[in-house]
Amino acid sequence: MLTQTASRPESKTASLDALYALIWNDLKRVDALILSRVRNEIELIHDIAEHIIASGGKRIRPALTLISAQLCGYEGERHIQLAAAVEFIHTATLLHDDVVDESKLRRGLPTANELFGNKASILVGDFVLGQAFQLMVADGSLKVLKILCDAAAIISKGEVMQLITEGQPETTVENYLQVISAKTAILFASACELGAVVAGQEECEESLREFGIYTGLAFQLVDDALDYSADQAMLGKTVGDDFREGKITLPVILAYNAGTAEERTFWTRTMSALDQRPGDLQTAIKFMNSHQSLSQTVAMARRYCGKAAECLTGFAPSLHKTAMLDILDFCASRMY
Amino acid sequence: MLTQTASRPESKTASLDALYALIWNDLKRVDALILSRVRNEIELIHDIAEHIIASGGKRIRPALTLISAQLCGYEGERHIQLAAAVEFIHTATLLHDDVVDESKLRRGLPTANELFGNKASILVGDFVLGQAFQLMVADGSLKVLKILCDAAAIISKGEVMQLITEGQPETTVENYLQVISAKTAILFASACELGAVVAGQEECEESLREFGIYTGLAFQLVDDALDYSADQAMLGKTVGDDFREGKITLPVILAYNAGTAEERTFWTRTMSALDQRPGDLQTAIKFMNSHQSLSQTVAMARRYCGKAAECLTGFAPSLHKTAMLDILDFCASRMY
Repeated sequence: MLTQTASRPESKTASLDALYALIWNDLKRVDALILSRVRNEIELIHDIAEHIIASGGKRIRPALTLISAQLCGYEGERHIQLAAAVEFIHTATLLHDDVVDESKLRRGLPTANELFGNKASILVGDFVLGQAFQLMVADGSLKVLKILCDAAAIISKGEVMQLITEGQPETTVENYLQVISAKTAILFASACELGAVVAGQEECEESLREFGIYTGLAFQLVDDALDYSADQAMLGKTVGDDFREGKITLPVILAYNAGTAEERTFWTRTMSALDQRPGDLQTAIKFMNSHQSLSQTVAMARRYCGKAAECLTGFAPSLHKTAMLDILDFCASRMY
Repeated sequence: MLTQTASRPESKTASLDALYALIWNDLKRVDALILSRVRNEIELIHDIAEHIIASGGKRIRPALTLISAQLCGYEGERHIQLAAAVEFIHTATLLHDDVVDESKLRRGLPTANELFGNKASILVGDFVLGQAFQLMVADGSLKVLKILCDAAAIISKGEVMQLITEGQPETTVENYLQVISAKTAILFASACELGAVVAGQEECEESLREFGIYTGLAFQLVDDALDYSADQAMLGKTVGDDFREGKITLPVILAYNAGTAEERTFWTRTMSALDQRPGDLQTAIKFMNSHQSLSQTVAMARRYCGKAAECLTGFAPSLHKTAMLDILDFCASRMY
């Protein structure tokens, strides 16, 4: 099901075209709704929210809500504001994340905390989360509220779990998968599940939720690998962000596990003590390559893509189903 | 209605006894519920949440929900978890506030950010807010969800508004009242309104909400004045916290407005440029006293207490009504 696109890099960004063609009008309405909610009389809120939202990204989470709703044959309006709520929850997380991680760049642009300060990022993050909850309340479904409130609670727990693993390369793979399930995959899962909920297709909720979980895990793992890839400079991220922040991701855990005593000392110095010297990032990548940590990470991501694809077997062939499988292709082909 | 207690300081803390006697059992259940929600397998969440929640305070917001529910004759169970949700929203605000304000002490104890770091405080604040939303969803009333989600959104807006006034003693009184209405009074208002909502006493919602607004404004203004009062050392707050943080409160605005050119230069240096020297806090208090800024602030608080009391005129005399009026007495007598 997953085409191996490693040999045709020109398809890297092209593969989401069919998805975006299907949801384009909906997504424009989501964007308009988002901007209308942050077009605030308070300039600082407006500026920060617009900065982070307008700086774009793939809008993958709201896209999942929209395409899932279409897959389930939904023809109403509710998916627009729920997709916006999903993106607001994500945006709030980004704002707080960047403060916590002391990040300076996101998608090639200065982060909000870099531009506007930590204080403003924390408080506008809270504001944006408030917008998400207001949109959910306006939707008026307790089922939707439960899905997204649970997601928000689980995400924050995942963020704390991640903070605890900071500087600990001895974190287990299992523990790490728990962290990213909570901090990343749960919102992908909720985004997809909402499509079935608004369409009233109760029997599809579970499979779409699982599709989202696996897709989210795959996206996170590929992101982890990209952070140690020279290619990522193309994505506008600072090379080695995760490394510099001592953020423990799967490639580090795998390299540490497979490492010699000397290598482990290196990981402890650079990631735990954050004592980093010129050339350390290159050494880290060298160790990762010698233990296939990056390719193993990508392989695991591809396995999750395969599991995600299986979740859609119950759906009849359709343009929407193909577009959702394209998301997996896109993810699996972001790194070779 | 408001007894003038300035001449009997021994009644300062005694005046809430009747309130707590009425709600004691309920409040113990609220506390147990709160602690059960933060007794988390993640030690860091447990420690921080317990630190800030167990460090106590008056629990004034959940107390308002409980006593309002009793005032409306409510005999069910919903007020317990809604009071807990209110306290969680407040706790989340405190955690983020203390990071934003770089506060070191709260109620005489080190703040969570001081003990556990800013990162943990931000993320556990998000976690605690997530608990609030889950409790609200569990209650299952869209009306309740709307009240508290709106409150959370307004509070975050108020926090941003306050951040913008930072270092600006020329902020207008009107602007400042908008800030504290949003950041403080709205949660008092929601806490009270919920009592009428759970009791199904629709006709009481508006008056209890207004009671909460005025009570919240009064509490905030007295807090503002206490920050420049020698008495406050008794409350365990660092003397002059607001001053050191350049936080613009009503006493500063009034002193700046009434100040000479020389005094305004002082305020600009100390509050805007945050260029503070030994003796500056004493000078600030001297200027405030010479313009009656503190007594005017307290007088305004007392006027709000009076307005709050008026909101209860429609309620028949009862122990609960008396206890709510006691809250106003308590507030009005915290500073002379």
